[in-house]
Amino acid sequence: MFRFHLTSKPEGPVAPRTGLIETARGVIHTPAFMPVGTLATVKALEPAEVRGAGAEIVLANAYHLFLRPGHNLIRQMGGIHRFMGWSGPILSDSGGFQVFSLARLQKVTEEGVRLQSHIDGSAHFYTPETAMEVQSALGVDIAMPLDHVLAPDASIDAARDAAERTIRWYIRSVAAENAPTTFAIVQGGVYADLRRWHARELASHDAPGYSIGGLSVGESKAEMHAMLEVVTAELPEEKPRYLMGVGSPEDLVNAVARGVDMFDCVLPTRLGRNGSVFTREGRLNIRNARFADAPGPLEPGCDCHTCINYSAAYLHHLFKNDELLGHRLASIHNIRFLVRLTWQMRAAILAGTFAQFAAAFLATYRPVDEAVRAEQKEKWEAQAGFNGR
Amino acid sequence: MFRFHLTSKPEGPVAPRTGLIETARGVIHTPAFMPVGTLATVKALEPAEVRGAGAEIVLANAYHLFLRPGHNLIRQMGGIHRFMGWSGPILSDSGGFQVFSLARLQKVTEEGVRLQSHIDGSAHFYTPETAMEVQSALGVDIAMPLDHVLAPDASIDAARDAAERTIRWYIRSVAAENAPTTFAIVQGGVYADLRRWHARELASHDAPGYSIGGLSVGESKAEMHAMLEVVTAELPEEKPRYLMGVGSPEDLVNAVARGVDMFDCVLPTRLGRNGSVFTREGRLNIRNARFADAPGPLEPGCDCHTCINYSAAYLHHLFKNDELLGHRLASIHNIRFLVRLTWQMRAAILAGTFAQFAAAFLATYRPVDEAVRAEQKEKWEAQAGFNGR
Repeated sequence: MFRFHLTSKPEGPVAPRTGLIETARGVIHTPAFMPVGTLATVKALEPAEVRGAGAEIVLANAYHLFLRPGHNLIRQMGGIHRFMGWSGPILSDSGGFQVFSLARLQKVTEEGVRLQSHIDGSAHFYTPETAMEVQSALGVDIAMPLDHVLAPDASIDAARDAAERTIRWYIRSVAAENAPTTFAIVQGGVYADLRRWHARELASHDAPGYSIGGLSVGESKAEMHAMLEVVTAELPEEKPRYLMGVGSPEDLVNAVARGVDMFDCVLPTRLGRNGSVFTREGRLNIRNARFADAPGPLEPGCDCHTCINYSAAYLHHLFKNDELLGHRLASIHNIRFLVRLTWQMRAAILAGTFAQFAAAFLATYRPVDEAVRAEQKEKWEAQAGFNGR
Repeated sequence: MFRFHLTSKPEGPVAPRTGLIETARGVIHTPAFMPVGTLATVKALEPAEVRGAGAEIVLANAYHLFLRPGHNLIRQMGGIHRFMGWSGPILSDSGGFQVFSLARLQKVTEEGVRLQSHIDGSAHFYTPETAMEVQSALGVDIAMPLDHVLAPDASIDAARDAAERTIRWYIRSVAAENAPTTFAIVQGGVYADLRRWHARELASHDAPGYSIGGLSVGESKAEMHAMLEVVTAELPEEKPRYLMGVGSPEDLVNAVARGVDMFDCVLPTRLGRNGSVFTREGRLNIRNARFADAPGPLEPGCDCHTCINYSAAYLHHLFKNDELLGHRLASIHNIRFLVRLTWQMRAAILAGTFAQFAAAFLATYRPVDEAVRAEQKEKWEAQAGFNGR
């Protein structure tokens, strides 16, 4: 079962909207943030804590679970929901992004991708049908088709080739036996015409939902926003739009402003484990000396489990001493921050005050420096090792 | 407030017994196991999980907290209970053991110990009065006096000298301003006459409780049992006896059989983080291939949060992939195992069937090999760097 209802009347295709997704395992209010549980665990957290932070759906990764522990084992254990103890909806990524970044890529053919595991070097042939078989075995509520992902600086010819293949792979994916509800993924790099064409083409396939891939991978914020505007303009209003791998608080606000409904990102848990937390002023590092003797919560007024129960001084102490409890408490705070932000945006959209909310938020939230973003991009490129450029 | 009531009629001083300790922050049923929160956090766990595993009291360490974040900071934050979010009783170790093992020891004089922090090399003079000031600042419910701890192979002359100093330091400790309820610590190495004399001498001081230190540090099990028998024979029946730093399931059973009431040990959490769990058959490693596709709980019949909610296959998956959630779930299981063991022993003592319970438990619980214990002893000695031998 998969149904999407718009619960607000958007002012056009490229405008903020609220909605409700119904699945057999529960509803998802949109805009929605999905915490990432790559290996069937949202790192350092129990399902009850993820739900307690307000999340209605989590994400898992087909490629990672295909390699370990193996999708057949998870099927044998009763499916991913039972395996990890999360009874709500689960969306899985096909692994397209991971296959083209993490894995040692051997060769892309029309049939699929020959690769070596980034874990143990074992050889695999991963096809659109493999990705669907894995996701069917996991028993997820929403699946992604395998897509051909390129680095952000791929040439337009390479990007067009990959985008065309992504459509053919999508058609094969939804034809697979026992395919779960499967979104189509819009690619096209930072080429507006290509993105527009790809979105329009996929829109004609009447997918239950549309993902927007290949963004937040090193392109500028302006490029990301431009691509979002081009894509959402082409997508059917009555289908949910999911911006993959995003993001930061400011990205969420900017994408919701452009008509996006769903998000996932490892940022809140990865930053949390590093002692970095979202606050209304921007990211702060818990190890900062200003927190050493702060008797109040990390973020005054925050309604997360961590801020309700522990002082900033205690969190500072945990991080200064590499205590594991710190990872968890900071991750809870960060997930709650993003989930609460989606709630605040929903409320503003319904009240007709989204523009003011977004302006006020972006005026006080200090995003991470360009220097840091550039460094992240460099890391991405070093790690990615894209063969497909 | 500190009151101890025997709730069974022991068959002599060296016999199993049940009791109840009343403190201002709640009661402790004995025999009791106290999980260790060295740095004001039971590693990887939240207070609610520790309590959920059945623990009624936790332990913290004065020496560690003196170094970081500093006892004055914790006092300023409202005391250790508020700082760490544990509202039940807390017992703190003075740090005697840590001062003589972890710290770079400079010099022991009658006045105290000149040492360098094992963290940053900073110089400190740690005296019995320092240890009491720290514990008073923490606001613990039960404190330990600074004791002079030696390696297990110390000569009898060195052991006698240290034991005598430990008495003088105890007298100074309880005379300190604002001293919390403070146990006396029986030392004496593996020398029966010295242990007997020390226990008898301290018994005359009418302490609210008695700790037994300097055991489980590399001596044989037979030596440990002999020392326990010598010591408990001398201690007043109406005072609780606490065996410091112990232990393993088999040690708990053997010590309760000899009249011990309280225990603490890092073993359940340390082993848990390493993927090793207590079961009725002995320790098992979760990474063992037999668990890879085990759909049932780690230990069938176990009533811990982990075994109730997760399969052994899922825990195996978490540990094979170094997922943080594994540390926590295994730690919960191990603490619950020891706490439940103390409950089972209490029930057996009250039913008059302790001897049968202990025999049955020890017949099926396979303790860790002597080879492993020898290796642990070696590690201990390498790490300890005892200057005082």
